[in-house]
Amino acid sequence: MSGTLVVELGARSYPIDIGRGLIGDAERYRPHLAGRQVMVVTNETVAPLYLGTVEAALRSYRLEKVILPDGEQYKCLDVWNRIFDRLLAYRFGRDCTVIALGGGVIGDMAGFAAACYQRGVAFIQVPTTLLAQVDSSVGGKTGVNHRLGKNMIGAFYQPRAVLADTATLDTLPDRELSAGLAEVIKYGLVRDPALFDWLEANMGALLAREDEALAHAIERSCQNKAEVVAADELEGGQRALLNLGHTFGHAIEIGVGYGEWLHGEAVAAGICMAADLSQRLGWLDDTSVARVRGAVESARLPTSPPTGLSRQRLLDLMAVDKKVQAGRLRLVLLQGIGQAVVTDDFPPESLGDVLQAAPTAPH
Amino acid sequence: MSGTLVVELGARSYPIDIGRGLIGDAERYRPHLAGRQVMVVTNETVAPLYLGTVEAALRSYRLEKVILPDGEQYKCLDVWNRIFDRLLAYRFGRDCTVIALGGGVIGDMAGFAAACYQRGVAFIQVPTTLLAQVDSSVGGKTGVNHRLGKNMIGAFYQPRAVLADTATLDTLPDRELSAGLAEVIKYGLVRDPALFDWLEANMGALLAREDEALAHAIERSCQNKAEVVAADELEGGQRALLNLGHTFGHAIEIGVGYGEWLHGEAVAAGICMAADLSQRLGWLDDTSVARVRGAVESARLPTSPPTGLSRQRLLDLMAVDKKVQAGRLRLVLLQGIGQAVVTDDFPPESLGDVLQAAPTAPH
Repeated sequence: MSGTLVVELGARSYPIDIGRGLIGDAERYRPHLAGRQVMVVTNETVAPLYLGTVEAALRSYRLEKVILPDGEQYKCLDVWNRIFDRLLAYRFGRDCTVIALGGGVIGDMAGFAAACYQRGVAFIQVPTTLLAQVDSSVGGKTGVNHRLGKNMIGAFYQPRAVLADTATLDTLPDRELSAGLAEVIKYGLVRDPALFDWLEANMGALLAREDEALAHAIERSCQNKAEVVAADELEGGQRALLNLGHTFGHAIEIGVGYGEWLHGEAVAAGICMAADLSQRLGWLDDTSVARVRGAVESARLPTSPPTGLSRQRLLDLMAVDKKVQAGRLRLVLLQGIGQAVVTDDFPPESLGDVLQAAPTAPH
Repeated sequence: MSGTLVVELGARSYPIDIGRGLIGDAERYRPHLAGRQVMVVTNETVAPLYLGTVEAALRSYRLEKVILPDGEQYKCLDVWNRIFDRLLAYRFGRDCTVIALGGGVIGDMAGFAAACYQRGVAFIQVPTTLLAQVDSSVGGKTGVNHRLGKNMIGAFYQPRAVLADTATLDTLPDRELSAGLAEVIKYGLVRDPALFDWLEANMGALLAREDEALAHAIERSCQNKAEVVAADELEGGQRALLNLGHTFGHAIEIGVGYGEWLHGEAVAAGICMAADLSQRLGWLDDTSVARVRGAVESARLPTSPPTGLSRQRLLDLMAVDKKVQAGRLRLVLLQGIGQAVVTDDFPPESLGDVLQAAPTAPH
């Protein structure tokens, strides 16, 4: 099966193509290439698997590539600069096209490079992980990490197209598959209770990589993302809801060191912490909390942060968050399955209790 | 005297305030500050002269500062990252405001940091050099250099306001004053023949730093820039004309090493080279060429590149330029005083002759 969704952004609208075997089809790229020069940004894991297929599809173009190391710990300015080294060494012009071939890290870095090279060149997302296909490749958030904060340096920069080839998931490690499911769970909890119901019934099929189940999860997730982005591209309002679990999650990712926990794993634990806080505030009933934790567990994802991160350390890391306003931390919390709010209206003690409740090491 | 121009960009329109003593007036900043947090980005030369005045004006805000080394050679990703170090160390939020206090290098780096910090925060330009006041602080071009190309990494990101305090020019070194005049000459040549006539008659007054003459040069230059930017913000068309002399100039700046020649000096030599090529093509008569060279000389600026840069080296450096399209170099050339065109329609030999004609060292 295959299909196409559209992110409606006026003159900057773009398609999300979903299906098997897309990356080898030149026609999927052609309408979105700005000129003859194409720079594929990928990593050491993905290149041996899929770069040849992309090169073959685009053999009539002047294609060059840059192969970066694999991992969140390499999503930094220094590694990002290697993309410019290559673009300039090959004298690529403003009419070149950057293609991101990889997961969320590659998409974020390549997109941010496309946003900034000569102040903006064409960009195509070719996500090869479930997390990138259901979430990070859509919506134009690009950027790199700073040692003091995740995704703190970046741009809103929309791609000209997203090609989600579900065949690339065949080679995805189990751990990465689970990590992607964290974002699918997120869409269900934030705004799509029917998706959440479906997830509870089909988690087994997803973990078994049944084609139809994966395609459904990707399409529904992209549909949700596309609707939110069309309504609030620059995150002035409702788009912030899609950060459910992310403020907690980013603190975990930095706290344990970039690359130790996958982004989706940290988000999964963060979703459970957000549910815990929502319960303590009396907003979420026990049954719903149990459903949240159940979904996370059944996706083989962690429900709490790792030991060794103290309450104070997590609080310090959470204080650097893009949702902080006038010095006050704001969080996405749940008022039900499918109902989320952004709020700073919670007692600090309750947040402290949530972090305390998480297993922390004695130091 | 003082005045205000407006860059008309719909909801993103912003004022350019020009006059003496603006930087000490809190009311000039207040309407444009997003919140209580203010980060002033400046350099080691400007800080001792003017930072105290800005701090006093904004003492009711939470003001922090980052003081960078002075010079084009520091306009790079590593130094740029120090701005983020500071923003994050102080836990500045998305509702902070970045103020650039300095010349073109500071404005470009601070503006690019504002564009990218948490994917975009408020930004105010406070230019303290003539070059920044007449040109670089207006129009939203921000960025940093790469060793292989000038301004190759950046963003279009408009400020919320430009405060051009002419009193800051009192301390400007003569060499920097002249460098700024290169851009004023440029406006005259590209689209404002009356300004060019006025420049020829008033260069003495400008070099003597007569208040009224400087204010006139700044206002007319900003008026020209504001009109062009309003019509073509992202340089899809006529804005490229404002790069007269810049493709040659950037090659010179990189060729001799960033910081050796001031940007305005390189642009001045580049303008003369563009006039030379225009003459060789039969587009510009001898009288006009003499007027161009005369204006550059009277501003105490160079009319040719430095010795030691070979024709081939200049050609190689010019091949990396944002105006290159489909692999073809495009240049801004002159068809008269006040009439410029962007063209790739020139014989390569003629360009070679221009570069050959420039004094080059024997090696």
